[in-house]
Amino acid sequence: MTATSAPVDVGHLNESEVRSYSREWPAVFSRARGSRIWSNEREYLDFFSGAGSLNYGHNDPCAQRALVDYLSEDGILQSLDMQTDARLEFLRELYDLVLGPRDLAGYRAMFTGPTGTNAIEAALKCARLATGRTRALAFTGGFHGVSLGSLALSSNGAKRSAAGVPLTDATLVPFDSPSQEPGEALDWLERAHFLECPESERPACVVMELVQGEGGVHVASREWAQGVELICHRYGVPLIVDEIQTGCGRTGRFFSFEHYDLRPDMVTLSKSLSGIGLPLSILLVDPAYDLQDGQHNGTFRGNNAAFVTATACLRKYWSDDVLAQRTRDREDLVTNILVDSGIADRFQVRGKGQLLGIDLGAADVTAWVASELFAAGILVETAGDRGQVLKLLPALTMESEDLNKGVTAIADVILRVCRESTAF
Amino acid sequence: MTATSAPVDVGHLNESEVRSYSREWPAVFSRARGSRIWSNEREYLDFFSGAGSLNYGHNDPCAQRALVDYLSEDGILQSLDMQTDARLEFLRELYDLVLGPRDLAGYRAMFTGPTGTNAIEAALKCARLATGRTRALAFTGGFHGVSLGSLALSSNGAKRSAAGVPLTDATLVPFDSPSQEPGEALDWLERAHFLECPESERPACVVMELVQGEGGVHVASREWAQGVELICHRYGVPLIVDEIQTGCGRTGRFFSFEHYDLRPDMVTLSKSLSGIGLPLSILLVDPAYDLQDGQHNGTFRGNNAAFVTATACLRKYWSDDVLAQRTRDREDLVTNILVDSGIADRFQVRGKGQLLGIDLGAADVTAWVASELFAAGILVETAGDRGQVLKLLPALTMESEDLNKGVTAIADVILRVCRESTAF
Amino acid sequence: MTATSAPVDVGHLNESEVRSYSREWPAVFSRARGSRIWSNEREYLDFFSGAGSLNYGHNDPCAQRALVDYLSEDGILQSLDMQTDARLEFLRELYDLVLGPRDLAGYRAMFTGPTGTNAIEAALKCARLATGRTRALAFTGGFHGVSLGSLALSSNGAKRSAAGVPLTDATLVPFDSPSQEPGEALDWLERAHFLECPESERPACVVMELVQGEGGVHVASREWAQGVELICHRYGVPLIVDEIQTGCGRTGRFFSFEHYDLRPDMVTLSKSLSGIGLPLSILLVDPAYDLQDGQHNGTFRGNNAAFVTATACLRKYWSDDVLAQRTRDREDLVTNILVDSGIADRFQVRGKGQLLGIDLGAADVTAWVASELFAAGILVETAGDRGQVLKLLPALTMESEDLNKGVTAIADVILRVCRESTAF
Amino acid sequence: MTATSAPVDVGHLNESEVRSYSREWPAVFSRARGSRIWSNEREYLDFFSGAGSLNYGHNDPCAQRALVDYLSEDGILQSLDMQTDARLEFLRELYDLVLGPRDLAGYRAMFTGPTGTNAIEAALKCARLATGRTRALAFTGGFHGVSLGSLALSSNGAKRSAAGVPLTDATLVPFDSPSQEPGEALDWLERAHFLECPESERPACVVMELVQGEGGVHVASREWAQGVELICHRYGVPLIVDEIQTGCGRTGRFFSFEHYDLRPDMVTLSKSLSGIGLPLSILLVDPAYDLQDGQHNGTFRGNNAAFVTATACLRKYWSDDVLAQRTRDREDLVTNILVDSGIADRFQVRGKGQLLGIDLGAADVTAWVASELFAAGILVETAGDRGQVLKLLPALTMESEDLNKGVTAIADVILRVCRESTAF
Repeated sequence: MTATSAPVDVGHLNESEVRSYSREWPAVFSRARGSRIWSNEREYLDFFSGAGSLNYGHNDPCAQRALVDYLSEDGILQSLDMQTDARLEFLRELYDLVLGPRDLAGYRAMFTGPTGTNAIEAALKCARLATGRTRALAFTGGFHGVSLGSLALSSNGAKRSAAGVPLTDATLVPFDSPSQEPGEALDWLERAHFLECPESERPACVVMELVQGEGGVHVASREWAQGVELICHRYGVPLIVDEIQTGCGRTGRFFSFEHYDLRPDMVTLSKSLSGIGLPLSILLVDPAYDLQDGQHNGTFRGNNAAFVTATACLRKYWSDDVLAQRTRDREDLVTNILVDSGIADRFQVRGKGQLLGIDLGAADVTAWVASELFAAGILVETAGDRGQVLKLLPALTMESEDLNKGVTAIADVILRVCRESTAF
Repeated sequence: MTATSAPVDVGHLNESEVRSYSREWPAVFSRARGSRIWSNEREYLDFFSGAGSLNYGHNDPCAQRALVDYLSEDGILQSLDMQTDARLEFLRELYDLVLGPRDLAGYRAMFTGPTGTNAIEAALKCARLATGRTRALAFTGGFHGVSLGSLALSSNGAKRSAAGVPLTDATLVPFDSPSQEPGEALDWLERAHFLECPESERPACVVMELVQGEGGVHVASREWAQGVELICHRYGVPLIVDEIQTGCGRTGRFFSFEHYDLRPDMVTLSKSLSGIGLPLSILLVDPAYDLQDGQHNGTFRGNNAAFVTATACLRKYWSDDVLAQRTRDREDLVTNILVDSGIADRFQVRGKGQLLGIDLGAADVTAWVASELFAAGILVETAGDRGQVLKLLPALTMESEDLNKGVTAIADVILRVCRESTAF
Repeated sequence: MTATSAPVDVGHLNESEVRSYSREWPAVFSRARGSRIWSNEREYLDFFSGAGSLNYGHNDPCAQRALVDYLSEDGILQSLDMQTDARLEFLRELYDLVLGPRDLAGYRAMFTGPTGTNAIEAALKCARLATGRTRALAFTGGFHGVSLGSLALSSNGAKRSAAGVPLTDATLVPFDSPSQEPGEALDWLERAHFLECPESERPACVVMELVQGEGGVHVASREWAQGVELICHRYGVPLIVDEIQTGCGRTGRFFSFEHYDLRPDMVTLSKSLSGIGLPLSILLVDPAYDLQDGQHNGTFRGNNAAFVTATACLRKYWSDDVLAQRTRDREDLVTNILVDSGIADRFQVRGKGQLLGIDLGAADVTAWVASELFAAGILVETAGDRGQVLKLLPALTMESEDLNKGVTAIADVILRVCRESTAF
Repeated sequence: MTATSAPVDVGHLNESEVRSYSREWPAVFSRARGSRIWSNEREYLDFFSGAGSLNYGHNDPCAQRALVDYLSEDGILQSLDMQTDARLEFLRELYDLVLGPRDLAGYRAMFTGPTGTNAIEAALKCARLATGRTRALAFTGGFHGVSLGSLALSSNGAKRSAAGVPLTDATLVPFDSPSQEPGEALDWLERAHFLECPESERPACVVMELVQGEGGVHVASREWAQGVELICHRYGVPLIVDEIQTGCGRTGRFFSFEHYDLRPDMVTLSKSLSGIGLPLSILLVDPAYDLQDGQHNGTFRGNNAAFVTATACLRKYWSDDVLAQRTRDREDLVTNILVDSGIADRFQVRGKGQLLGIDLGAADVTAWVASELFAAGILVETAGDRGQVLKLLPALTMESEDLNKGVTAIADVILRVCRESTAF
C-alpha cells in the first residue's frame, strides 16, 4: 500500500483519542449544502451523508428557513416532554403523511431521547416489561448503538469489548445469508430459541435491521424476514425493526420493512428524521407494548428545533412518492454504473435504494480506496465486520449529474487501487 | 386534597403513555424568552428551566443570533466526529474560559453523543477498560440517566424496575447524610468496598453528584466528599463527578466540585452546556482513562448548532465571575425569603446556588403545591425519592424582581396549601 | 385415568416438601441386594438402579466385603485431599484397568467433591480459566446438576426456574435430532456460536451427554457428535463429555464416548463410580485445562469408603470386557422383547446398552404405567422434558431371568394401560 | 526461613495439580482412630479433624459398628430421596435429640445432596423463590463452598477468581470487627442494603457464619449478630446461618447460634453430621421458605451409610449435654495453656469451644509453624485471608492428655519458630 505523508491531526490539542472520522478525513469542515461540503481548503462531494442522517442533503433550505423563523419568533426550544406547538405539529404530519397512508396509524409515538440508541433502549424496556422476559435476540452484523442495552445487541467485537463488562440479556444469532437456505435457518432459529427453550427463557423480543448498514450492507431476503416475523407471532414475541439508518426513505420506501410487507411491533427512527441533521429519535410502538408514565425519560426528548425541521422535511419530501420512487430508480442507476465499469463483476455489490455497499474483500484495500477518494474530494465511508466494504450513502436529493460523476469516480479509484495494490 | 377539574390531556391522540410533564402541566407551550414561557393561553414564570438545561434562560439572544447566523451561512450542522470550525471554536473557548483558568486544562474532552446518559455510558467504559474491573459504585438518591449502563447507577426504584432486566455491575451505597458522622460513613465505605474486598472486585469507579438534584436536593458535606476522593486515590479507583445538572454555574461555580476542592478523574457535562437547550454533552477525562479510536461512538456527537450556541454562551457568561457570584448571592436572597415567610422554620430547605429544594415531607402535598403554582402561572418541579421535595431551578439570569416575586408566591402557596390540607 | 387409593405419605412428619421419589414410590425401603430391593412389606425388582448409580446392583458382595474389611482395620475414612492408601490404590486401578487400555492415560484425575454436580462445576472452572472466556455451550434435553453453575447447563424448565436468579454464562442449543440433517445442524451451530461470534464471546466449552438420560433417552448420532468435536477442535474450545449417568459401562462401553471415537478434553464421572452407591465423583482433564493448587476444593472430596468400594468394583468388572459385552448384547435382548410384544411398533424405543427409553408420548400415561409397575413390584422411573418416557436402567448384573421377566412385565403393563386409558 | 529437604510429591503420577493438603502434609495416610492418624511411616496427633468433619474423632467405634452391621444386613445404601428405615431413623433422632429439646422442631429437614455446598445452594433457592428477589448478602471472611452459587458468598479472592465468570446476585459486606462499634456497623448495613435500597433490590437473604472458620476464626459479637437478625426480621429477609463447620457441637453447643439466642430461618449442617466423616448434609428450613416437589435434587442425597453413622453418633453424643459442656470447658483449658506459655500475650487468640485460632500475623511464619508441627507429628491447618492464622480443630473427644500435650507442643513450636525467624 502507498502512504503519502502522515495525516495531519486535526483534533484539538486536548481532545480525546476516541474520535475516528477526524482521522480518516483529516480536514476541518465549515460549510455544507446539499451534497457538497467544504473544508477550509476545498470542496467535497458527500457520499457519506452524516452516516445516513442527511437523506435530504445538508441544510435543506426549507428546513433551514423553518428553523430560522422559529428561532426568530422565540419558539420554545427545550421542553422535555411538555406539550408544544412544534411537537404536536410534527406528530400530526408524521401520522398524516407517513403512518396513516401506510396503515400504520395504530402505532403510538414515543419520544425517547434524541439519539438512536435512546430509542433502542426504550424499545427493550417495552418488550421486557410486557413479556416479563429478559433476553433480546438480535443478529450478527447488526448495529443498534453503544449504550449498554443497545451494545448488547450490536455485533461489532471491538465495540462490544469496549463495554468493559459482560453484555448480558441478549443473544446474537446469524443473519440471513445467501449461502444458507432460509427455511433451514428459520427451523434452527425456531428450535434453538423458541421451541426447545423453556418458555420463561424465550426471547423478550427480536431486534433486526432489514438492511444491515454498519455490518457491511447485507440485505435480508423476503422469505427469511417474513419467516422471522411469523416465528415471533407464533410465540408472542415482539418484533422490533430498527429503521434508524434504513428509515426516512433511504431504501426507496419510508420504512425498509415496507419492501417486506412486515408489520413490526416496534420501529425505531432517528438519523434523518429531523431532516437537517439535528438530534431526533422516535419509537413507534404497538399499544400492547407501550410504557407507562415516566418509565423512560431523558432531558432532550423535546428538541423543538428538530421537530420544526422534521416537520418541514416531512411536508416537502413525503407528501407524495416522488423521492421514494427516485431512490428506487437510483438503485438501478448506480448499479448500472458499477456493472458497466466492471466493478460488479469483480466485487459483490449489495444493498437497496441508496444504501449500497461494494465488498472489496479486504480492509486495507478498502481503506486505501476511501483515502484516495478523500484525496480526490469524495467522502465515502467503510463498513463491515472487517472494514472491507465501501458504503455509498449519497443524499437521496443529490443532483443526478453529481451522482453519476461520483459513482464513476468511485469505480475508477477502485480499479486503480486494485491495479496498484500488491494485495491483488 | 382538592382537585379542580380533571386535567385536559394535551398529548397527541397517538402518543405514548410514557410522557409525564405534559400531564403535570397540561398546557401547549409555544414561545419562551428568558424566564418567561407562553402557552397558547397564558404566560408562565419558569422555575423549572428545562430541568436545569436552561441556566441562561430561554432563547438567550446572543446564542440565538449566533445560531441564526450560522444557519444563514450554511454552516455544517451534522458532522459526527469530523473536525469542524464550530467544534474547534467550542473546544478552544471551553479550555480558554473554563478549564484553563481553573487549572483543569489537563482533561481531555470527549464528545459522547448529545445527552447526559451518553456521557455517563462513556465514562463507565473509560473506567472499566482502564481498571479491568466492572463494578461501578454510586450513591442512593443519585440520578445519572436511563440507558442501561447509567440506569444501574440511578437510585429511583420505579425507573430501575422499568429496565425489565437485572441491573448489574453497579452497587449503590448511602449518600452523605446529616444524621451520620462522615468519618464513620467513610470507614464503612472503605471497609466494605475497598479494604475487605478482593482486589479484583474493587470498584471500577465511584460516580457521584455533589448536589443530588433528582434525588431531592441533597448536598454532600465537604468532609465526606473529600473523604470519598481520598479513598478513591488510595486504591487507584477513578472518581467520576456527574455535573450534568450541577454544572455550567448552577451551584454558583462553573463546576459544583469547585466548592469542594476536588479534582475528579472524569466529569460529565450536559444540560445547560449548549446554553440554549440544544442537545450537547461532553466528558472531561484524565488522559489516564481516555478511550481509544472508535471505542465509543454515536451519530449525533457532532451537533454543530449546539457548538455554536455553547460558544456564544461561554463567551457571554464565563469570561468573568459575575454570573457565578450572582448565583452564590442569590442562594442567600432566596433563603432569606423562605426564612422570612416561615417556610424555612417549618420545612427543610436545602441546596447550593440556584439548585434549591424545599422538603415538604409528603408527596401529595408537594404535588398539590406544584399544581396550585401551575394554576398561578409558575412552573416548579417536584423531586425526591417520594416526590416530596419542591425543586427550585430558576434561570441564573432571571430578573431579580421576578425571582423575588416568584419565590414569595411559592412561599405563599405552600402556606396556603398547608392550611387547607387535612394532612397537616 | 384410574386412581386407586390416595398414596400414603411416607415422608417424616417434619420433612421438606422437596422430595419426589418418596411420593412416586410410597414405601419405606430397608434392604437391597443385586436387583432386588425390599420395603418393610414386600420385594421389588429394580429397573431404576439409583438413577444409574448402581450399575453393579445393590450391595455388590466384593465391594461390601472390602468396605467391611476397611472399616474393621480402622482405615482412614475422611481425608479431604490428603494422600491415602485407598486413594492411591483407586487411582492406580483406574489408570491400569480403565484409562490405560483405552489410550486415555493422558488425562489427569481430579477429585472435585463427591457428587456429579461438583465435577461439572470444576470442569467449568477449568474451561473458563484456560480460555479466558465465560460462556458454556450445552444442549437442550441435557441434565448436568442443580448447583448454580451446572444448572445453567441443564435444560429442565422447572429446575431452572427454581434457581430464583437468571442463569448466566451458558447457552443451550438444540441437541441432535432424527428430524434434522446433522450437517445442517452443525453448520448453524458453527455459524451462530463460533464463526460469526466475536472471538472473545466464543464458548469457553461445549458440554454434552452422548445419551441424554434425564432428557428422555436421546442418543446422539455419530456424525453429529464427531462434527461437534471437530468444531470444538477447529476453534480451540474444550469439549466436556458428561459421563455421570452414561459412564461405568451403562451403554456397553466404560465410557459412552468410546462408541463415537471421540477424545474429549474433559470427562465427568460419578454415580456408579463407587460401585456400591456411595458418593464419589471424578473429573478427567487434559493437562492443558488442569486447575492449580486450591482453585477448587470441598470437604468430602476424599471419601475413602467410596475409594475402597470403587477399587473392588473396577477389579471385578473391568479387568476384562465381559460385563461391557453382555451389556451390549442385552440391548438387543431387551429390544427384541419390546419388538415381539408390539411395544416397539407403537412407541419409539431409544437408547444404548442398558440405558433405554420407551417414549409413551404423554406424561399421564407414563406416570400411570410407572405407578402400576410399582404396584406390581417393579421400580421404573420416568424421564423426558414432559415426563413422557419410561426409562429402563436395570443393573448390568441383573440375572437374565429377571431381566426377561421384568421387561415382559413392563411391556404387559404398558399394553394394559393403553387399553384402559381413555387417552388412546 | 528454614527449609529442610524438598517435600516429596505424594500425588499419583496422573493427578490434578488442584490438590493442596497432600502438598502441605506430604505423607500417605492409611489408618486412623480417635485423634490418632497413621501414615505408612509414623503416627500423627490430629488437630485438623478433617477440617471439622470429625468432631467425634476418627472411626468412632459405635458409628463404625453400626455401619458394619448395616452392611452385613444388606441395608440399602443408595436411595436418592426414596424413604428408608435408615433415613427415617436419622430424622427421628435429629428431631428427638437435637431439634425438639432446643425448641427447633418447627424446622423442616431437607436432604440437599451430601456436601455443604449443596445445602447452601438449596438454601439460596429457598430464599430467592420465597422473596422473589435475587441478591444474597454475605460477609467478608465467610466461606460457604465453591459451586457457583455458594462461591458468590465466599470471600476468598483466589477461590472467587477461579470461577472464571463474574459472581453475581451476591454482595459481601464487612463482618463484625472488634475495631467497629456494632451499632454503627448495623446502622450502615441497614441504610445501605435495606432502608435506602429500592424494595425490589433488597437482599433475598442474609447468610452468615457466627464463627468464621476458613476466614481466620473470627467470632461475631452478640450485639452485632442479634442486630443482623433484627434487621432481617424488620424487612422480611430470611436469615441463613451456616453451621457447616460450627455445628454438631464444635463451639460448645450443638449449633453455634445457641450462644446468641438467634432463631435463623434456615440452617445448614454438614461436615461432622455423619459422625464418621461420610458425606452428609442437611438444610433446616422454616416452612415459610420450603421448596416444592423436585425444585432441588441430586443423586446422592440419600446416603444411607451416613444416616446410619449419624444416628449412632447423635445417640451417643447428644442424648445429654456432656460433650457440649466438655467442649465449652476445653475452650478455657486450651486458652490457659496459650496464656501460660505467653502465646496469648504475643498473638491474638480467638474462637469459641474447640474452634480456636492463633493469629500469627504473617503467612510465612504460620506455614513454617504448621510445617514444623507436621515434622513433629501434629497436624494443624492454617486459615485466614492471608493464611496467617493457625487453626486448632481437635476432636471434641480427644483425650485430655493428648489435648494438653498437643497444645503445649504447638505453643513450643510457635515460640521456637519466632525465635528462629528473621521476620520477627
